[in-house]
Amino acid sequence: MGLIGSDERVFYKPVDEVDLGADSKEIYIRANVKAPRMAGLLVKVFVWLLESRFLGAVILHFLKKNNLIHKLVSYAELQESPLFVPFHPYEGTEVVEEYIQCDHQSPEKQVQQATLCVQSPENTLKTSPNFSFQRWTIMDYARAYKSREITPLMVAEKLIEAVRESSKPSIEMSFFISFEAQDILNQASESTLRYERGEPISVLDGIPVAIKDEIDCLPYPTTGGTQWMHKVRSCKEDACCVERLRLCGALLVGKTNMHELGAGTSGINPHYGTTRNPHDRSTIAGGSSSGSAAVVCAGLCPAALGVDGGGSVRMPAALCGVVGLKPTFGRVPHNGVLPLNWTVGMVGILAGTVEDALIIYAAIGGPLPSDRVSHTVPNVCLPLLKLPNYNSSIKLARYGEWFNDSNDDIRICCSNALAKLHDEYGWKTIEVTIPDIEAMRLAHYLTIGSECSTSIAHQLEMIDKAELGWDARVALSVYGAFNSREYLNAQKMRHRQFQIHKKIFSKADVIVTPTTGVTAYPIQDDALSTGELDYINGAALVRYQIAGNFLGLPAVTVPVGYDKHGLPIGLQFIGKPWSEALLIHIAFAMQALCMSDYKKPEVYYDLLTGK
Amino acid sequence: MGLIGSDERVFYKPVDEVDLGADSKEIYIRANVKAPRMAGLLVKVFVWLLESRFLGAVILHFLKKNNLIHKLVSYAELQESPLFVPFHPYEGTEVVEEYIQCDHQSPEKQVQQATLCVQSPENTLKTSPNFSFQRWTIMDYARAYKSREITPLMVAEKLIEAVRESSKPSIEMSFFISFEAQDILNQASESTLRYERGEPISVLDGIPVAIKDEIDCLPYPTTGGTQWMHKVRSCKEDACCVERLRLCGALLVGKTNMHELGAGTSGINPHYGTTRNPHDRSTIAGGSSSGSAAVVCAGLCPAALGVDGGGSVRMPAALCGVVGLKPTFGRVPHNGVLPLNWTVGMVGILAGTVEDALIIYAAIGGPLPSDRVSHTVPNVCLPLLKLPNYNSSIKLARYGEWFNDSNDDIRICCSNALAKLHDEYGWKTIEVTIPDIEAMRLAHYLTIGSECSTSIAHQLEMIDKAELGWDARVALSVYGAFNSREYLNAQKMRHRQFQIHKKIFSKADVIVTPTTGVTAYPIQDDALSTGELDYINGAALVRYQIAGNFLGLPAVTVPVGYDKHGLPIGLQFIGKPWSEALLIHIAFAMQALCMSDYKKPEVYYDLLTGK
Repeated sequence: MGLIGSDERVFYKPVDEVDLGADSKEIYIRANVKAPRMAGLLVKVFVWLLESRFLGAVILHFLKKNNLIHKLVSYAELQESPLFVPFHPYEGTEVVEEYIQCDHQSPEKQVQQATLCVQSPENTLKTSPNFSFQRWTIMDYARAYKSREITPLMVAEKLIEAVRESSKPSIEMSFFISFEAQDILNQASESTLRYERGEPISVLDGIPVAIKDEIDCLPYPTTGGTQWMHKVRSCKEDACCVERLRLCGALLVGKTNMHELGAGTSGINPHYGTTRNPHDRSTIAGGSSSGSAAVVCAGLCPAALGVDGGGSVRMPAALCGVVGLKPTFGRVPHNGVLPLNWTVGMVGILAGTVEDALIIYAAIGGPLPSDRVSHTVPNVCLPLLKLPNYNSSIKLARYGEWFNDSNDDIRICCSNALAKLHDEYGWKTIEVTIPDIEAMRLAHYLTIGSECSTSIAHQLEMIDKAELGWDARVALSVYGAFNSREYLNAQKMRHRQFQIHKKIFSKADVIVTPTTGVTAYPIQDDALSTGELDYINGAALVRYQIAGNFLGLPAVTVPVGYDKHGLPIGLQFIGKPWSEALLIHIAFAMQALCMSDYKKPEVYYDLLTGK
Repeated sequence: MGLIGSDERVFYKPVDEVDLGADSKEIYIRANVKAPRMAGLLVKVFVWLLESRFLGAVILHFLKKNNLIHKLVSYAELQESPLFVPFHPYEGTEVVEEYIQCDHQSPEKQVQQATLCVQSPENTLKTSPNFSFQRWTIMDYARAYKSREITPLMVAEKLIEAVRESSKPSIEMSFFISFEAQDILNQASESTLRYERGEPISVLDGIPVAIKDEIDCLPYPTTGGTQWMHKVRSCKEDACCVERLRLCGALLVGKTNMHELGAGTSGINPHYGTTRNPHDRSTIAGGSSSGSAAVVCAGLCPAALGVDGGGSVRMPAALCGVVGLKPTFGRVPHNGVLPLNWTVGMVGILAGTVEDALIIYAAIGGPLPSDRVSHTVPNVCLPLLKLPNYNSSIKLARYGEWFNDSNDDIRICCSNALAKLHDEYGWKTIEVTIPDIEAMRLAHYLTIGSECSTSIAHQLEMIDKAELGWDARVALSVYGAFNSREYLNAQKMRHRQFQIHKKIFSKADVIVTPTTGVTAYPIQDDALSTGELDYINGAALVRYQIAGNFLGLPAVTVPVGYDKHGLPIGLQFIGKPWSEALLIHIAFAMQALCMSDYKKPEVYYDLLTGK
């Protein structure tokens, strides 16, 4: 992590700024090989030196340095991502009759189609008097705005007041890293004017949506949960996903708190405060998208964006009792997301209900026009969410030993949820074996660690280590300790696991697991300023997350109940590549069977009716 | 490279042998995280230890070991390749009228179409009395066999005699590693019978073709130029490309010599003898496909197969004065080729003429049926080789400083060849700048080194180091010394260079360079038993090779003249992905202008007429 002088490294310009013409000022570097010819005895002596443990390492260091490998490659600063990503070719999934296929339209049009999917008259469960608690959905807001019961400006004012209250020392929820009341009020005023003119852009117009502080969103800096990232990397424009939400009229309400660099699962952040779980302030919200899960849980937004590189959307969603959707790798453009890795992270959605996740997914899904050349991203498909006419032929793969490797409350609750799917819809559970789950977790750790360490190596050289939290320093030390053989072997494991999962998907539509192995655990005081290292709880949290990231598969978590302390439990469905529509369909069916038991969080704000 | 006990590593079975059902015997490994929770002062102390250079490395080693990372991932033995390869989506290239498109047919049918491409009556240059030397082509053999002037069996007998002679101590060409006269005679007898019945399979029936000893070909072991590879890895069936040649009736005449593990460019092999250049026995043949280039040069076969991971087909082809074609990554299935790397190596063709390269390319090109799911490999296109009606609109990109970074004879000879193309066909040369050529060479070295080191790590643990040649031991020491950041940064360089090359190809059809920076240099006696380390000549040899491997681009080298010592010089054309047809078309045009000056090698066998 030492500072490397600019004479010892090369900064490569963006390709578009490089002159490739005949009169370019680019310099041709002749190979300046610093090694004498050797043969005979000399080679033998050299081999003996090279193969000796310490001397060999020193010789190799100087060989690489003298031959410009360090300068031109190893320590060079390049803006490009590595060439390869876990992108799956589209092999076609059955497009069910009840799906609407969006033909790469504008975000507003895709949202318009999504509203058709959630508006069916059967979806009126929420009026049921038996329900103990229901969050307001995007459609609830849109209806209230249209009927002039309330305006976006009024909601914005309530929201600002709620955030203010939640920040009081007695509550100290630490929802946001950046939050600018005036910017929110300005957006809300414009939205309100649009409703007054009878011209809202879409059902997302005026809907509060929060953005994880790993995603660029003007006018905010992007800290990545650190004290320094925004000082060395400025946020110049909205990330693609944020731009799409803004195009739909969404009210972007600030940058949510997160685990530093996304390098942890608890959401304990020594710099911006530890996000607390709205169901129980004394427990973690989960991470790394801690703030995004907590604001949705607490009623501040129907939905928020997160980034999921190792379960970072699904884990906090499960711990806070909201829906979390991680789309297929490549489904949402990654432009404007902090480049903390290249092959495992994806923008994901946290939402109060499956319907709201569907609408946000419709808004942000679909490739950039320029992506279409290199990858064939299939069209976004949206399921018509109708109850009760459910496809009874859905097959769920369950690996019993893995499924049951969670605490008792989770195991029982998730098994009951599965039984409900069976009883209500006739869905079948198929028992399977998915080998090497733990090896996959380790290979993923090795991969995300190597990629993170490479991606921010340059920034780290510009800062003082003391600006990093203690647990982040431990993470970065480990992340940087892998050699190329370890990285490549991890990629072999990835290839292997993708083949294994392909076989599982030839037998079943989705894989079903608990979302986490433990529920929200207590925040201990000694962790608040230093962060904590708790790899045992960490491993239990990520136990079911890895296939989603390492293999690029889509996955969704739905709240299905509570443990004995009243803390939420999530059930996860992992799908084939590009099968988000099926996952949303299944999640909606699951939600319908659990919704009546949902509990109001301890910390909750009702921005629509103020109750 | 130390032996690791089987209790410290896992051997993963092939996926097809893994039971994924409910009653599988696969064991579910619970995450056994060996790390106490830490927070507060303890974290600070831990960070301090971890960040200290030596203690940190030791702690990290034990952390990885205790947490099963070493056992389950780093040192595990997996059969799978890593998931990612430099595979380029087919963006469509103009299919010129004079191309025949082969619609994924059988090898025999593709060869049949190829014969249509080379049979046009204009191609009768070789009857010209002004030519000083011409090799017999596949069509010459086929015509002679059909007219019963000679039989495959007679050719086989002459070949066996020639190989015997070339192996005498006074000549000692070291063409082959394995060569079984009886197997060759058996094949030749069968082929002779087919001609007697008037039923040859294709024009390749009875044509001698040699195979680099890196490619599986029954009944031979595959040594990879080592003394040990075949002891730890047995050859069970023909590689896909060999099987395709056999299906066409080709006479497979043994396994050619090569640089040990392909890890060098000279072809100096201490175990099987150093392949000598037929143009001058005192100079190298180039490597690593040294034997394949030399047998073609010496008239033993019209064509041979090589493998090109860093110019290993094109460099020896240029040094021996034959044609070398390295197809686009993915064009020829890699099944049955020693897995020495995953992202840079490709089977390539060495041939006496462009026409013969075309026919062999037609035989071996095209994906496996099973590949078609994951990759869309475009159809094989074959150009109709007609003179003189050449497309006058071809644009050649030349980077002057790079082009001229070769010895004087090469520079002048290659410039003259370019001028001929301009004068004869009106082709235009466009001066461009291709930045970071040297950085790309280093990034490629880092990549092929890391991949090679990973791919054979397991085999290396099973052998005694003394079985390795000295120069291979140096190579493997360096190959294993890269960390994951270095590997990933090399992949960033790759992505960057692919973008740069894409831009160059938007201005020009091909990039033109000398094939090598130096011609064949003398074999020094002290190198014969130890091998030699000569990175300066090595760097000059690979100077123009890298884009073909690192970016997966197709490339072809054509002999265009000789240096002052009478040693051959090659000119290289590098094309867009999947543009082999255009490259062959260009190479044929180039060959037509140089052929009349071709010289007979010092060591040459005429198997057809015996002259």
